[in-house]
Amino acid sequence: MTPQCEPGSLLTALPSAPPEQAESLGELLADTWKVIVPGLTHWQHPAFLGYFPTNNSPASVLAEYITAGLGVQGMMWSTSPAATELEQVVTDWLAQALGLPDAFRHSSGRGGGVIQDSASSAVIVATAAALQRASQGRWRTAGTEGRYRMYCTERAHSCVSKGARLAGLGEPQLIATLPGTGRMDPDALSARIDDDRAAGLIPAVVVATVGTTDVCAVDPVPDIGQLCRREDVWLHVDAAYAGSATLCPEYRHLIDGIALADSYAVNAHKWMRTGTPCDVMWTSDRAALTDAMSISPSYLRNPATDSGRVVDFRDWQVPLGRPMRALKLWYVMRAHGVEGLREAIRHDIRLAAQLAHLITAEPGFHLEVHELGLVVFRRDTDDNTRDLLSRLQADPTLLCTPTSVNGRPAVRAAFGSPYVDADTVHYVWKRIRTHAQ
Amino acid sequence: MTPQCEPGSLLTALPSAPPEQAESLGELLADTWKVIVPGLTHWQHPAFLGYFPTNNSPASVLAEYITAGLGVQGMMWSTSPAATELEQVVTDWLAQALGLPDAFRHSSGRGGGVIQDSASSAVIVATAAALQRASQGRWRTAGTEGRYRMYCTERAHSCVSKGARLAGLGEPQLIATLPGTGRMDPDALSARIDDDRAAGLIPAVVVATVGTTDVCAVDPVPDIGQLCRREDVWLHVDAAYAGSATLCPEYRHLIDGIALADSYAVNAHKWMRTGTPCDVMWTSDRAALTDAMSISPSYLRNPATDSGRVVDFRDWQVPLGRPMRALKLWYVMRAHGVEGLREAIRHDIRLAAQLAHLITAEPGFHLEVHELGLVVFRRDTDDNTRDLLSRLQADPTLLCTPTSVNGRPAVRAAFGSPYVDADTVHYVWKRIRTHAQ
Repeated sequence: MTPQCEPGSLLTALPSAPPEQAESLGELLADTWKVIVPGLTHWQHPAFLGYFPTNNSPASVLAEYITAGLGVQGMMWSTSPAATELEQVVTDWLAQALGLPDAFRHSSGRGGGVIQDSASSAVIVATAAALQRASQGRWRTAGTEGRYRMYCTERAHSCVSKGARLAGLGEPQLIATLPGTGRMDPDALSARIDDDRAAGLIPAVVVATVGTTDVCAVDPVPDIGQLCRREDVWLHVDAAYAGSATLCPEYRHLIDGIALADSYAVNAHKWMRTGTPCDVMWTSDRAALTDAMSISPSYLRNPATDSGRVVDFRDWQVPLGRPMRALKLWYVMRAHGVEGLREAIRHDIRLAAQLAHLITAEPGFHLEVHELGLVVFRRDTDDNTRDLLSRLQADPTLLCTPTSVNGRPAVRAAFGSPYVDADTVHYVWKRIRTHAQ
Repeated sequence: MTPQCEPGSLLTALPSAPPEQAESLGELLADTWKVIVPGLTHWQHPAFLGYFPTNNSPASVLAEYITAGLGVQGMMWSTSPAATELEQVVTDWLAQALGLPDAFRHSSGRGGGVIQDSASSAVIVATAAALQRASQGRWRTAGTEGRYRMYCTERAHSCVSKGARLAGLGEPQLIATLPGTGRMDPDALSARIDDDRAAGLIPAVVVATVGTTDVCAVDPVPDIGQLCRREDVWLHVDAAYAGSATLCPEYRHLIDGIALADSYAVNAHKWMRTGTPCDVMWTSDRAALTDAMSISPSYLRNPATDSGRVVDFRDWQVPLGRPMRALKLWYVMRAHGVEGLREAIRHDIRLAAQLAHLITAEPGFHLEVHELGLVVFRRDTDDNTRDLLSRLQADPTLLCTPTSVNGRPAVRAAFGSPYVDADTVHYVWKRIRTHAQ
């Protein structure tokens, strides 16, 4: 499942100069199987439990094929009306299926959803909207001038730091977590915002996480949201992985308080049977996004945009151009039905519980985290954990990844792939026990 | 070719609530043809001459299908070695085919290529690298603090302004153009850089354009490049459309001086038979990119990255995750051969010349621009041009788009689609003459 290859092996296997003459697609297919596939880490393999998953499904793959064949570019409504309106429809559908507030739907008239390539891009877009609001538009011409602040915890995804950096804000301000929980401390956030205001700085955006990468911690969105409303600070909630769980009513509590957020993002490509890239981002204030990002040179003018009656997704994202992004999500939602997607979530969570149960019952193993599809565990000593990790990283038949919990090394297994089943869990567990001996 | 639909027609045609039950792929395919395809603007239609093209080809579509099916995520070398190394190989291939300097190749050891989603993202990445260099890393923690400056002309693509804004720099500084040419005036740039330094500001990045969107103007890269070297300012060259032309030796002069650039971007999805997104960006200083964007939490640690012997493309782009981006460019380059891609460029340029010739010969028409595949023209009076534009925008059988040249409205036709032929040109010209009468 993970390839046995040294750095540079493909570099030397392929010609160093480009082909002058055309070759047949048959030759390409043969070479794909001969030289490319053996060098891939197979993210769709059942025993791939690394990182968070990247999903796919027959419906998604078929839709990608059709999307590529149609080859339309939906930067504006006028450049393919159905591409834009389908995205409005499916993001409204998904908002309903996930239990999001009406304000996040296009049909509300003030909010709506958009498909980004990644949770990273969602952070950048949310930050632009936040700066637009906090600066009353001044940021667009004057830059950030070292005055605006972003806040998150140290457990936020690396894309939050990267987003802050790329937006010219420097490092985000790290807010303390409630002891032993990994959850942002709202009182600490409040104090930091007060201090920053007193120092003449402008608190602009808080990024809260629902389901952190390391331990699947959930920041207290209700408290943070009330604080952000009171302080007029943009609240972006990143639920890249865990957000899909709220398809099921029994996990809706994960997004308590989400109506207080200004924007929210879930990676359908992580846990909703949709191929990457498919990050779905919603906002309740689309004017802040478009005010921040709209630029209209003469070559993009058109009657539909001028009428103000349409959505132009170019103003909701970093790039200008965009493929038809919604078709695959439309295919996935209809081919599975919301019922099918819900059952998939429950199936994956049951498998995680199965592994967690095996770990708990095993002497010399310690279960650190079991939340949704995430299982994090360690051995009795850190040396034993490190030894297990290095053996696991050398085993080509499965993939678990390293992490650390409370400063101690740990092993991380994430469920959410459609191809994992109970037999896989038994196999993975058998390998883990073997490597631990 | 352009759909006859009112804003909101798909919104009302589709159910407002998501489907609870699964449906068959057959139903989805039928609905795609019934409700989606009629609402698309068909970018692959022969008479689509709007904007710059978005290409595709059988090889590209097949590769997208395979990419979706394999479903790997190549954020790091270790998460799919062949995905990363294939991207190193094909960007090196393309650098050779386009006549780029060795310093832009991975094999040089200091530079290399990466596939971005868009020229916009390439600007953002180049800006991050430029800020890293100009601030000696200080920007990463302290933000832009209103001190760093970006420069371009008013003819630069809208993504340059958007990039500057998103990077926290405010508006880019607009440098005057040489009279009647649309080309950046290097003396004006030099004077502005001097003024900014005198004011305590830090000139960080110049974005020059090879082939502007409106008139296909080419900034004088040799002069700008020498100035940037002398001033230690990052030079990014955006050749999103025109860059593909240098596949042919007779157009290599377009990139004279490119060895002086720090980064360079060409959209293979515009004019190289490759589906969107496929922006190829090269740099001669990859350390500036990775120093700017690398963040390594424990869950991304792995022995290959720690060894320093591999490329991790997550540090060359905005998002963390990425699909296997190189497969379709590999397929396109091999299925066409560089010879085939060259012939495609020449074919498209011949068609543009054919239309330009017809316009020149027609009383009451004035040819404003004829460069590579771009033809821009106007009628004898601005009122007549505006009238022609509005009739063209209402004609569903072809697409030309509006622009302005020297403050006067004009019609823009861009060639570069594989499906346009001489018959198309005759048809389009017949419609234009009819609408003009």
